[in-house]
Amino acid sequence: MPERVSLDRRDLHAILDAGFVCHLGVLDDGVPLVLPTIYGRAGDRLYVHGSVASRSLRTARAAQPVCVTVTLVDGLVLARSVFEHSVNYRAVMVFGVPEILAGDDKLEGLRTLSEHVVPGQWEYARRPSREELAQTTVLELPLDEVSVKIRTGPPEDGDGPDADLPVWAGEVPLRVVALDPVRDRAGRDDAPFPPHLAAYVSAVAARTAPSRT
Amino acid sequence: MPERVSLDRRDLHAILDAGFVCHLGVLDDGVPLVLPTIYGRAGDRLYVHGSVASRSLRTARAAQPVCVTVTLVDGLVLARSVFEHSVNYRAVMVFGVPEILAGDDKLEGLRTLSEHVVPGQWEYARRPSREELAQTTVLELPLDEVSVKIRTGPPEDGDGPDADLPVWAGEVPLRVVALDPVRDRAGRDDAPFPPHLAAYVSAVAARTAPSRT
Repeated sequence: MPERVSLDRRDLHAILDAGFVCHLGVLDDGVPLVLPTIYGRAGDRLYVHGSVASRSLRTARAAQPVCVTVTLVDGLVLARSVFEHSVNYRAVMVFGVPEILAGDDKLEGLRTLSEHVVPGQWEYARRPSREELAQTTVLELPLDEVSVKIRTGPPEDGDGPDADLPVWAGEVPLRVVALDPVRDRAGRDDAPFPPHLAAYVSAVAARTAPSRT
Repeated sequence: MPERVSLDRRDLHAILDAGFVCHLGVLDDGVPLVLPTIYGRAGDRLYVHGSVASRSLRTARAAQPVCVTVTLVDGLVLARSVFEHSVNYRAVMVFGVPEILAGDDKLEGLRTLSEHVVPGQWEYARRPSREELAQTTVLELPLDEVSVKIRTGPPEDGDGPDADLPVWAGEVPLRVVALDPVRDRAGRDDAPFPPHLAAYVSAVAARTAPSRT
């Protein structure tokens, strides 16, 4: 079975650690909204930058359930039949009622989120002021109710009745790569490119490659 | 304003044409589900592979609203302050009550979807049988109620009080690239790699590069 549900916490953690953009599903007056935003993981807790959703979260009469989905696209699966075409991917869905963090918890959640996306920036850049923190919404969700799905490998019609068709079949792997950093020429522009960012750029390919094939 | 709402239909179409994975938000017993799936566009209509959502769509008592979000991540924006960190991206949200296609409409929707993801495969691979079509769900949504957001360029703190901090600031561009295709060695494996797939592989970088910078 090339497509499988994983109950292995290591898969859950590895997928979340390899991404930084999630899609946050919230209800807004009974209609689903799917909002792209960033997230971070620490242990078995997920921290989601919720400012994009703050209107619907604040106007909700009670704590409301959300779904956070992280999808990493690893390749296109080209089969002999249109029906067996597929995508190699790793996806995590997290369900729950998020806690909207405040005070020190919010600061710590934001630190986790920042360090997840680009490790080292929290120490390096100027940290949030009280006013900036007030403009930020950070949601925390436990990784309790989760679904992990992974598809890897070739198409499934290599041993069926279509196996003899004269059609090229296989996978076109897709990867996210980082191009050369582009310095902002506004303001002071003599700061050297710091080692933690160099390490980040060279690690992007490794982070986004599937851990199992 | 580096982050902007676009009302230009050309941006809407260009973003949808540059991607092939969307996140489909549906309600399932009052709880939002965010499901990754593939889509295609033709004119001002979106076709979404809805089999992942078919349980919740079928059990819904009435036609129900969905939200389909397509997000292309173009780069990380590294600012002088943590607060001004951002992501360069292009995102489309489509709202509406989808039509679940049947018969010839379903076949045509599936053709549109297939040709959107990998042009040429519909003619090249074996087309769906009646039984395969029955196992497939295709949703159609008009591109009427949409939201298009685009962020490009450097961080926003290059001309504020943080401009003199000794912190490297700028963008790390991120791109999706296709690696060398991997042939499935199961079944017949002498079919040549066809020209339409070669064109697809070489076009991935162009498709995923932002059309405006």
